[in-house]
Parts: sequence; structure tokens; C-alpha cells
Amino acid sequence: MRLAALLALVGLSALAPGAHAQPDPSAPYAEAAARITEAALADSAAYDRVAHIATTFGPRLSGSDALEAALDWILDAMRADGLEGVRGQPALVPTWVRGEESATLVTPHGEFDLPMLGLGGSVATPPEGIEAEVLVVTSFEELTERADEAAGRIVLFDVPFTTYGQTVQYRTAGAAAAAEAGAVASLVRSVGPSGLSTPHTGTMRYGEGIPEIPHAALTIEGAEWLHRIQARGERPVVRLTMGAETRADRMSRNAIAQVTGRESPDELVILGGHIDSWDVGQGVHDDLAGCVVTWEAVRLLHDLGLRPRRTVQVALWTNEENGLRGAQAFRDSLGDRVSHIQLALESDSGLFDPVGFGYSGGEGGRELLAARVEPLLEGLLKTDADAGPAGITEGGGGADIGPMMRDGVPGLSLRTDNGDYFVYHHTPADTIDKLDPAHVQRAVAATAILIYVAAEMPERLPHGTSASN
Amino acid sequence: MRLAALLALVGLSALAPGAHAQPDPSAPYAEAAARITEAALADSAAYDRVAHIATTFGPRLSGSDALEAALDWILDAMRADGLEGVRGQPALVPTWVRGEESATLVTPHGEFDLPMLGLGGSVATPPEGIEAEVLVVTSFEELTERADEAAGRIVLFDVPFTTYGQTVQYRTAGAAAAAEAGAVASLVRSVGPSGLSTPHTGTMRYGEGIPEIPHAALTIEGAEWLHRIQARGERPVVRLTMGAETRADRMSRNAIAQVTGRESPDELVILGGHIDSWDVGQGVHDDLAGCVVTWEAVRLLHDLGLRPRRTVQVALWTNEENGLRGAQAFRDSLGDRVSHIQLALESDSGLFDPVGFGYSGGEGGRELLAARVEPLLEGLLKTDADAGPAGITEGGGGADIGPMMRDGVPGLSLRTDNGDYFVYHHTPADTIDKLDPAHVQRAVAATAILIYVAAEMPERLPHGTSASN
Repeated sequence: MRLAALLALVGLSALAPGAHAQPDPSAPYAEAAARITEAALADSAAYDRVAHIATTFGPRLSGSDALEAALDWILDAMRADGLEGVRGQPALVPTWVRGEESATLVTPHGEFDLPMLGLGGSVATPPEGIEAEVLVVTSFEELTERADEAAGRIVLFDVPFTTYGQTVQYRTAGAAAAAEAGAVASLVRSVGPSGLSTPHTGTMRYGEGIPEIPHAALTIEGAEWLHRIQARGERPVVRLTMGAETRADRMSRNAIAQVTGRESPDELVILGGHIDSWDVGQGVHDDLAGCVVTWEAVRLLHDLGLRPRRTVQVALWTNEENGLRGAQAFRDSLGDRVSHIQLALESDSGLFDPVGFGYSGGEGGRELLAARVEPLLEGLLKTDADAGPAGITEGGGGADIGPMMRDGVPGLSLRTDNGDYFVYHHTPADTIDKLDPAHVQRAVAATAILIYVAAEMPERLPHGTSASN
Repeated sequence: MRLAALLALVGLSALAPGAHAQPDPSAPYAEAAARITEAALADSAAYDRVAHIATTFGPRLSGSDALEAALDWILDAMRADGLEGVRGQPALVPTWVRGEESATLVTPHGEFDLPMLGLGGSVATPPEGIEAEVLVVTSFEELTERADEAAGRIVLFDVPFTTYGQTVQYRTAGAAAAAEAGAVASLVRSVGPSGLSTPHTGTMRYGEGIPEIPHAALTIEGAEWLHRIQARGERPVVRLTMGAETRADRMSRNAIAQVTGRESPDELVILGGHIDSWDVGQGVHDDLAGCVVTWEAVRLLHDLGLRPRRTVQVALWTNEENGLRGAQAFRDSLGDRVSHIQLALESDSGLFDPVGFGYSGGEGGRELLAARVEPLLEGLLKTDADAGPAGITEGGGGADIGPMMRDGVPGLSLRTDNGDYFVYHHTPADTIDKLDPAHVQRAVAATAILIYVAAEMPERLPHGTSASN
């Protein structure tokens, strides 16, 4: 039905242009888009690839054997796909290893396990753990007010989820704030809107000149439990034991492949996701599915013999989660060629029902692209999503394309109806069973159409100033 | 509004009986019911008690200090409430201690933690754990067919949840079946319809003359992961380590209190829940809230000076989860007096929005009770619940009242709209944040009304034969 609709559109545009007041700017790409859509919806090849990698390699933390084994498999598969310029681009990445860890509520009656996950980059506790009274606060401001109660204690930030941006600061900066107030360790309520005893990990950083104290996430249930004990006038006591270790940096790679441009091979349409993940679950929504969708979009162009004007290059970046070293190596390798980039697209907000793309770039670029692409996406996008209007909307980007965007490159993100993303994000529950094969099919189709048009259209998309991004 | 409705009903029934073709059998109890409803909805005393016990004592496994400390607190509070006949009725209970435990996927790339919970009553592994290839099956029948593959392996039953009764047999009987086929350990997919990396524990039993092998529950995500590895032709390898220990039985108690009957003190209306829980989370829906709701119903009668014809006795049974020793001690102590029981009610299916009561007993008993009670519950019950029609319906009971019911006592269960019960059941997520204070208020009101009428009505409810229950 979608194909039929698209073919009808081709027919209208190509055979009866006089029927339109203005020529449809999407018409030159409509036949290719129809072929892309038909191929993307024909089978579950992309989903199967996500499932295979997730099941075989599991989570893929920077510095792990699993990440490098997954990269080996992916580079082999890219070559087997017949893609061009397949290579592993080196990047030295941090190696943090979780080790054995636990949190135990030791008062008032017996000892109870508190499910938890240490936060990436945290130091260890002594082998016997740290046992201390807990001070529960709900904000940095409250910690400042109660700083005289923090010395020698474990500070818990029990901050209910609002937005990721607002809430995540307690995960990233909580240890530094707690240590500054004299705490011996710090805990955060997991950064997610809901859970079922589900801890969330993620990165954290220490402050310059401030003692480095162990830092871990409790579940929502665990954080509320400690908070309720304090609320009725008692001090919960917790024993925190973490065997975390930061080892020497290790060489990793960005996996890169392309379809070289027919006329302007030096002009690049770049797209990708990050292949590293946290060390729990399978990192499927964050961000294996984004990697495979962008990779499969490029493979589709190759398989269909669609070699557009410009080069379309997929990059699966390493070390997004705790360093962005892959993104920096990628940017560095471009040098001055960054001015030749038509656009950069990242999919890294979960892979749910596709809604469209977000765009940040030079003025008029969104309109230029939307006029050519949006008519071709009909039937592929969810139109009543909580995530906003279907199509190409203002505001996009991604952590790995950030360094390019800061130099003016138009940046896009794949938008999906991702209201549940932060339920799974950085948890053992971010696994293949949470991914819908139909969403993957349509995301591949939409992405392949977008990059095909961007690589084929004669017009250059305007770069912004570094300030505009 | 609810009170007004009830008072209007009283007015209609008491002042204008001629307006009815038949006298309303609920009329004699309407004024008391209105007072009960008003008092139950007036504050959050019952919820606060659940929260206090949950937060202070945490999970309350048989044989634990926490269970006995909770019982001490409850018996003191029952005395402070002014209830009569407050006592701890001794029962010797099993003492199973979980110890340190973990499951690790050791192939094919690095080692990944599989969140898990050992099952209650399981033996330990050797200290170094058991490392073996896993055979995944989806039924006992498949295990029988593939029995030649089970020897020396860990058998995983990856059985998606249908009903609790159908699915739980793999938890209770899986180890015996696996051991009979020569397995060295057994695992089950957690018994619940969904989760977010949420393991479910629960009881299990070994077979007579069959080797006792360690038995644990993986999360849904973990079970599916192993299943997918096997589905593509590889054998996952898991290392299971469990430090579980069964210690000597320990003395526990049923907490009992009553309002002694005005005319027939030897005739009993019995109600309660079980105060023990599994050793994770806080055992709030299973079954602390059921305990407090039944206890508070009795306390309300006392506070309102409602001393009915018969004795109303609340019993918070110990050791429902892994032995039913409390229920048996309670039944044994009744002796021949079981024939004097008007009814026994148990609340042990989660405490969500109240829908009514289920009834099993002698013929005509349900109708007798419903005619008197249902009109008084108006406004207290959810009428469009997935859990079925509001009111007193056929089919009720409970594990702790089972021994009485087998001797013919009419058995009731509190029914709530408990579609999420098995999401939380036996998990670290069965915590106070999952309980709605408004549900507790209305459950207390409905329960107090039911037991008041049953204790006050002149009619005896017909006992069944032992076969009928």
C-alpha cells in the first residue's frame, strides 16, 4: 500500500507535471524512494542483525573484549556487504571495569540487599566496603543547606525524574558535590521515570581538587526506602562495596563504510550511531539499533545500485558513553574536509516508532531538505506520536556528531516515539526483546530515503556558524 | 457523597419500608456501615501502618529476625489498639537463608552478570559455583523429549507467563524434573507477565529420591538471551553460584486479636493475611497490606464501639510462603470449634482497587451474605474492573484458610483489580510505593462492613462438605 502510494506519487509528478502549480521538489527522488521502501519493508534483515549482535556480544563497554569482538564482526560484515572504504578508525578509549559490588541496608532489622549499579568511572571502596549513616537530600541546594550533616556520611540524592537533562546532573556531578561536603561515598536514585527494581548505570566525573569517593545508583524503590526511614527521624545505615577499577586505556575503533559518490566523492553525507554501550543488558536501544539502522540504510543504497552524487558514509562511533573519544578521532581525521560535509545524522535516542528527523543547521536548510524528503516518507512515520509532529522538525544533533556541528555542519537526529527510552536506558533491561521489528524496518527506510536525497540533490545544505549549533 | 448515599439508603430502608416489596435485608446494618465507611475514609491510618511496618522491618522471611521484630511491633500495637485476646500463637517455621548468589553468562565474549534470585528451599552450589552448558526448554514435555541432552547440563525452563497456576509449576517442580533427567542445576524464567530486569523468587520443592540440585530464577531478559543463543545453534554456558542454606526450624507466631462477640462469643468470624514474605523488597502487596487491612477492619469495629453478636478475630498468619506452618497451627488450635466458624476471610492477592469478595461455602451462603452486604458497599467498589463484577461472587479462599475450608468453613477472599499483582509478586519491587492509600481506605471499609454483617446477622452461613472446597 505504501509502495502503491509512492508509485502513484511518482506517476503524478513525472507524468503530469502540469497538474501542479509548482514542480514537486521530491519528484526526482520518488522512484528511488519507492524502491528503498519496498526493499526495507520486505524482510527483517536489519532487525536480525541487531538481534545477532546483541545476542552474541552482549553489552559492549569501552575497553571490553566484547566491544572489540563486535567491531571485528561488524567490519567483516560491512566488507561482505560489498561496501566501500571499510575500515576501523583507531581511538584510544578508557577502560573502566565494574568488579564485584553491592549495597546493603544494615539497619534496623537484619541486612537487606539493595539492588544497585556502580557508576562508570567511580573509584572502588576498600575491600570491606564503606559502612556509614546515609543523609538523603533531594537537590544540590538541600545538600548545601545540610552540608554540616554530610561529613562522614553517605549522601543519597533521591531526585525523582523530570527530564533527563535535569535529573542526570546528580549522576554526573553528585559525587563531587557530596565529597565537597565531606561525604565518604555517594548514591543517586536511578535516572529513569519508572522501574521494577531496575538500577540505571551511566557516567560520572569527579571535581578538580575534590576527593574521589565511590558513587553508585540505587533503584527507585531502594532510594525511596532510605528516604522514608530518614523522613520518620531515623538514619538508615548502608554498607557499600564496589570493586571498580580504571585500567590503562585500550585501542578501540570506529567502524566506517561508505558508498562513494558518483560526482562529488569528497562531499560527505555522514550517518551513524555509537557501538559502545554500558556493561549491562545488551545496549539495544542505546545504541545498537541506531547503529544497525544507519548501517543498513547505506547497505540498502548499495544493494539497490543507488550511487548518489555525494559519498554516503556510515560511522559506528566507539566510546560515546564515557569519553567521546571515537567522535573526536572521527572529527580530527576530517581536518578541513569538514566544510565538505552535506550533513551529519545520528540515531541515538532509542529505536521506537519513527516520527521523523530533527534538524539543526544553517538557515533555510531544514526547509530545503523537508520539501524534498517529507513527501517521500508518507506511510513510514507515526503521525500521532507523543514525540511531536511527523517530518523534519527544528532541533537535532547527537553527541558523536557534536564536534562536526560545532564547526557548522548541519546535524540531524532520527526521531522516534521514544517515551519509554529512559525506562530502559543504561539498564539490564535494554535488551532485544524491547525492539519492534516493524519499527526497525521503517526507520531503515526513512533514513535511507533521507540520506539518498541529501546525497543526490544538487543543492548544498547551508552550514551554520559554530555559535548556531 | 458515599456517606450521603448510604444515609439515604438507611432512610429509605428504615423509614419507608412499605415502599419496598420486600424488606431490605441490609437495612439493619446500614447505620453501622455508614459509620464504618466514614471512619475508614477519614484518614490514612491504615496506609500509614503498612508504610511504617514496610519501611521499618523490610522483607519478613520465615526464620528471620525481621519477621519476629515485625510481629513484636504488631502485637504491641494490637494491645495498644485496645483489642482483646491479643496473643502470639506459636508455630515452628523453616529457616532458609539465601546467602551470596550470582549467575554469569561466560560465553561467548567476556562474562556478563545475569540478574537472578535463588528459589526458596534450594540447596547451595559448591563455593566455586557450577559452570555448565545450558539446555533451554519451554515445557516439561520438551525436557522429556530432550532428556538425553540434559545430563551434566543446567536446564533452563523458559516458559512465558500465562496464568500463575500454569507457569509456577516450573518454579516449584522444575528442579526435580531437571535432576531426574541428569541436570546439575536448574533455572526458570521468572514467573511474571513482564518486568524490567526484575527477578522473582518463590518456593520450590525437591522430589522424593531425586538428587537435590540448585534452582534459581533468571529475569525474563536473561532467560530470553540464553534461549536466543541456543536458537541459533550454540550452547550458552552459565556459572551459577548460590550460598543458600537451610538452618534449624525457628519459633515464629501468628498474631491474633479480636473483638469478642456480644451474644455468641464462641462463634467466630475469622479474617487475616500472612505476615511473612519473601526476603526481597518489602512484601507489601504480598501480603503486608492484606494483613493491615484485615487488622484495621477489626480495629475500626472496636474504635466505633461496634461489638457484634459473634466474635471477630483477626489472624496474621506466619510462614504462608514456604510451609503454611502458621495456618496449620491455627487450624490445629481450633480443634472441634471449627464447626463454630461463621466464615473465614483471607486477603492475599495484592491490595489494589477493591472489587468485592469471592465466596466458597455451603449452598445459598453467598446469596444470604450478598443480600445483606452488597447494598452497603455502594461507592466502595470499582465497578468496571478487569478483575470481574463488583460484589460478592462465587469462588473464594486462601492458602491460610485452606485447612479450615477443607473442614467445611465458608471461605472468602478480598478481590481487588489486581492485574499487576504478578508483576510485583515475589520481587524486590513489591514495595510501599506500589500501594495506593485510597485503595487501602476502601478495602478497610468494605472488609469491616462485610465482617460486621457476618458477625451480627442472626443467620448462620451454611458450611459445605469437605469435598465442596
